[in-house]
Amino acid sequence: MKKNVIVGQSGGPTAVINASLYGVVYEALNREDVFGTVYGMVNGIEGFLNGKVMDMEPLEQSGELELIRTTPGSYLGSCRYKLPEDLNDEVYPKLFEKFAEYGIGYFFYIGGNDSMDTVSKLSRYAEKVASDIRFMGIPKTIDNDLVMTDHTPGYGSAAKYVASTVREISLDASVYDNKKSVTIVEIMGRNAGWLTAAGALARKYEGDNPVLIYLPETAFDPERFIEDAAKAMEKVSNIVVCVSEGIHDGKGTFICELASDVGVDTFGHKMLTGSGKYLENLVKEKLGVKVRSIELNVSQRCSSSMLSGTDLKEAVASGAYGVKCAAEGATGKMIAFKRLPGEDYRIDYVAEDVNLICNQEKTVPLEWITEDGSDIGKEFIDYAFPLIQGEVSVPTKDGLPLFAYRK
Amino acid sequence: MKKNVIVGQSGGPTAVINASLYGVVYEALNREDVFGTVYGMVNGIEGFLNGKVMDMEPLEQSGELELIRTTPGSYLGSCRYKLPEDLNDEVYPKLFEKFAEYGIGYFFYIGGNDSMDTVSKLSRYAEKVASDIRFMGIPKTIDNDLVMTDHTPGYGSAAKYVASTVREISLDASVYDNKKSVTIVEIMGRNAGWLTAAGALARKYEGDNPVLIYLPETAFDPERFIEDAAKAMEKVSNIVVCVSEGIHDGKGTFICELASDVGVDTFGHKMLTGSGKYLENLVKEKLGVKVRSIELNVSQRCSSSMLSGTDLKEAVASGAYGVKCAAEGATGKMIAFKRLPGEDYRIDYVAEDVNLICNQEKTVPLEWITEDGSDIGKEFIDYAFPLIQGEVSVPTKDGLPLFAYRK
Repeated sequence: MKKNVIVGQSGGPTAVINASLYGVVYEALNREDVFGTVYGMVNGIEGFLNGKVMDMEPLEQSGELELIRTTPGSYLGSCRYKLPEDLNDEVYPKLFEKFAEYGIGYFFYIGGNDSMDTVSKLSRYAEKVASDIRFMGIPKTIDNDLVMTDHTPGYGSAAKYVASTVREISLDASVYDNKKSVTIVEIMGRNAGWLTAAGALARKYEGDNPVLIYLPETAFDPERFIEDAAKAMEKVSNIVVCVSEGIHDGKGTFICELASDVGVDTFGHKMLTGSGKYLENLVKEKLGVKVRSIELNVSQRCSSSMLSGTDLKEAVASGAYGVKCAAEGATGKMIAFKRLPGEDYRIDYVAEDVNLICNQEKTVPLEWITEDGSDIGKEFIDYAFPLIQGEVSVPTKDGLPLFAYRK
Repeated sequence: MKKNVIVGQSGGPTAVINASLYGVVYEALNREDVFGTVYGMVNGIEGFLNGKVMDMEPLEQSGELELIRTTPGSYLGSCRYKLPEDLNDEVYPKLFEKFAEYGIGYFFYIGGNDSMDTVSKLSRYAEKVASDIRFMGIPKTIDNDLVMTDHTPGYGSAAKYVASTVREISLDASVYDNKKSVTIVEIMGRNAGWLTAAGALARKYEGDNPVLIYLPETAFDPERFIEDAAKAMEKVSNIVVCVSEGIHDGKGTFICELASDVGVDTFGHKMLTGSGKYLENLVKEKLGVKVRSIELNVSQRCSSSMLSGTDLKEAVASGAYGVKCAAEGATGKMIAFKRLPGEDYRIDYVAEDVNLICNQEKTVPLEWITEDGSDIGKEFIDYAFPLIQGEVSVPTKDGLPLFAYRK
């Protein structure tokens, strides 16, 4: 008898995590020779434990699956549930009983570091109990911080969103070019600066905004920043600065913590503000020029307006490739991208050992960051440029993007 | 001898203020029978006073003018310069000498309330000194707060940006639908709630997010808001709430001031936060659920990703129509839109007395707001729906939108 398939999504959403879901489901539904029913787990492994499961086939028949491909967010819902380290914990047999109940032979989990941890644990438990269920990880994260892969699905679209938005903010900031000003753009990325670095792609010509870019890979010195900003305004009246939310002083303190130490609201709560807000006040105090800070916020991971064609294609393909590998017997692997040498951008899809990937973090190489820590070099541009290429036309209805959602 | 034309932009940018610039320049350049040289003033009337003027014709020849049409921000640069109330002030003869120097017979100013004030004063001064220079206002503002016009260019694209972004944020907010949460979206509009109301267009079905919408047209009661939010979460686990930056308590205090009264940063500065941030803390305190606030910020006025085809077309046409009216002798007028009765959306372009428009503000009719002040009714949807229709394909290069800029 053919074994069934189950697929889930976990962690924060991206613009293309549903494209990978599409890839898994489409491929699995079209391999009727290998797979039985294709299930989706609602709200990840946590929802699955509570019996929240749906049949995915009707979505293909209704045309909804095609719409899922370009819908941001997690169609199946997500969770942040960490499986216990101890493989003797009672949750494991409970999960595997549920797998048996649904006749599951293939398990696909689309997510980042933590989700790969789930794949790792389940595949190790399967080995322990001699289960033949195959566990595969499909990568996704706007943070681009997974190791053993050239990049991750989700990053290209987020980078394209950041680059185009910073380009637009730079136009907006420059309209009063007879007066000096500082615009600080705070970009997601606690420990890895990949997304903040994408601000560099916004430049239309050499010397264009953003003139300063600070990543969390190096220590951030507020005084040095004020000097950098003052110097930059000698050349460009209205400067735009990209900072990662995770910039820190190199001694264990995030810059955003400097602000939240002091502000207390009506309820006595710390006023949690970001690094951008702190720097806004710093510029006001030290330079006395017009200043504004902008937090790009969740649109970085959920905007469908700047989908990268390359990213979308790779997200679908990594889901489909995961299914192929599982059909051929792979388990305990994550689909990864290997960039091929040569002028033109090409990648190979490979399956890497998920145990070597989970709970690790890939940061921007220090040698790609300029020596003074205030910009990113050509190596990054060469790396990121192909990932934001290609436009995607999202279906629209009544003037707005049309999205799939669970009814 | 043919008189020359000068056009300027003033106030905050929009996604289509350059489309109106395109409309003025294109129309004027193509009426060689009437007009001489077409000049642009750089940084508005303030820049003009300092002799910052450029010839616009080369832009048509180079193809740059076509690119200007879909470029957000103010291509010519802007200013916030208010002409003196006293028409006997020395700046007026100084300006008119400059007009004479450039052989100006036609003056076009693209902007909002304050810019129309400039058009009003200049046309009144012209009358006083029997100058035959014609002064015309071309409307623009994302706030949609100009009187005597159905709506303003810039509003449709901003509303479309708000609606699509709120729709995406709602998807993002709903991924952990096993837990309750509140997401507060703060939208531009100090006194007029037109843009915040556009959040209602994001709904995919009845009862969908955003479940609560608060405009500055009515008094905001924080306690009532907490009750509204708690009640809404009984039906929808993850609620999205749209609030205008300008919500106030009805007694002269902005909600955002409640927060900034208390937070003080390292420098002793008030921590200026928005109404959304204040409500975020309020929800944390009173409801104890997961909460996040998002400020849509300047992308509302400078994003090119959600251009409304209707808005872009009308912005171009209002610029061109202004030129036609001036050629026929009009002065002291602003181009306005009159919506025609009938099922299908159609407008007439008219020229209204700028003196009746400047320094006034049109707010959302109170009868369009639900009685409890927490939502907007069908009248608004019917009003705004046609304004966000139509997709625009912005030229791209290297994976990013291609924008015009002054070299």
